[in-house]
Amino acid sequence: MLSKAQIKYIRSLTQQKYRKEHNVFLAEGDKIAAEWLGSNANIRMVVALEDWAAKHEQLLKKHPETSLHIVTPSILELVSALQTPNQVLLVIDIPGQQQTLPDREWSIALDGIQDPGNMGTIIRIADWFGIRHIIASPETVDFYNPKVVQAAMGSHLRISFHKSDLGAFLDTAEVPIFAATLHGKSVYEMKPAEAAMLVIGNEGKGIDSLLIAKATHPVTIPRRGGAESLNAAVSTGILCSLLVPPEAF
Amino acid sequence: MLSKAQIKYIRSLTQQKYRKEHNVFLAEGDKIAAEWLGSNANIRMVVALEDWAAKHEQLLKKHPETSLHIVTPSILELVSALQTPNQVLLVIDIPGQQQTLPDREWSIALDGIQDPGNMGTIIRIADWFGIRHIIASPETVDFYNPKVVQAAMGSHLRISFHKSDLGAFLDTAEVPIFAATLHGKSVYEMKPAEAAMLVIGNEGKGIDSLLIAKATHPVTIPRRGGAESLNAAVSTGILCSLLVPPEAF
Repeated sequence: MLSKAQIKYIRSLTQQKYRKEHNVFLAEGDKIAAEWLGSNANIRMVVALEDWAAKHEQLLKKHPETSLHIVTPSILELVSALQTPNQVLLVIDIPGQQQTLPDREWSIALDGIQDPGNMGTIIRIADWFGIRHIIASPETVDFYNPKVVQAAMGSHLRISFHKSDLGAFLDTAEVPIFAATLHGKSVYEMKPAEAAMLVIGNEGKGIDSLLIAKATHPVTIPRRGGAESLNAAVSTGILCSLLVPPEAF
Repeated sequence: MLSKAQIKYIRSLTQQKYRKEHNVFLAEGDKIAAEWLGSNANIRMVVALEDWAAKHEQLLKKHPETSLHIVTPSILELVSALQTPNQVLLVIDIPGQQQTLPDREWSIALDGIQDPGNMGTIIRIADWFGIRHIIASPETVDFYNPKVVQAAMGSHLRISFHKSDLGAFLDTAEVPIFAATLHGKSVYEMKPAEAAMLVIGNEGKGIDSLLIAKATHPVTIPRRGGAESLNAAVSTGILCSLLVPPEAF
């Protein structure tokens, strides 16, 4: 059961303003919920269909801090931020922002990514390639937007997130800075780097020219066909596959 | 202006059934519309805001076959298949299915991709890498779904689409068949191929095991971190960047 006030509270969390105020975010869906419940994250609420709760009794027992609310499909739909709600929704504490920024390891810097699907996919890519830090400019979409959380498929658990002025941040970097642009050097002429920063720009405008100027390696994926550009998340994946060393680091 | 019947007709085209019946599809948004109007595609209708039509007068003149409908933002919103309609919408003839399947060149085969964003992004990737054929199993999302068209950003113009039973198709292939799986050989141990087929599976289930058995090269992108999998479109991009020769072919 959920009270009216609880329903209103959960619904408010689709907005960044209320996520910030309460310092929590929403994670939805069977697989993602199982991944979060299996972690040591602080789960505030579990809102689930009866079947789902019965099947995941053991997992739920690991979270005595959590209030469990069994609801009907129509109530789940009411509080869900997704178009097709899926068995379970969690309200989770946003972890404290890491104060230690990446030093001599890989990181990804995002300059104004707007699409939540792209952001979530990039978080998942970082996690796949063992990259543990993502830094984003202030105008980049919120790391904890429900669609970002959905697309990241639980990878939030293994990434440290930073919001920062990217110009100042790039100025202090002590590693090679790769910046994805249409007018750089071919990625096939570059070697993987043990530690580096990869800068990815806004879907339409690319990277701010002031930031490109700070990059040690403007880099391009050579085009063989007719498309004008590649999707930002796809570019991130391709560049990571060619620039992050194949061996775990 | 649009009549009630025209509004109903355009709205019906968000459904595959009606796209098939009328053999047309929807393309929306400023950039995509400009790309289609610049091509020799047969455009049935242009539905646009007055400003947009005025700015694109020259482009519109190239299409005497097309009926132009100037509408208000609220009418555009009414007929749009997108959450945020954007200045212009086209109704375009679906090109006749190519009878000649790819022979000694690159192609991508999709086994049950469900997400329209993934499908559109894969079409854009194929176009970027100069791959001209995409074959999809019958249960794959429609090539002409409005969200697919939007994510493909005009790349439909340079790709031939085929729906086919993939098993029979793979049996006749005379090129190496790369199949993306979590349990194949590392892509870093493989060489680019002048001609090949890349098989990509459903977002959750991957490629049908009967199809994997037909692949000459089950291939894996080695994981360095914690994510369980990569997004299907991102995997496609990474595999193309490593398996399609860097030189245009």
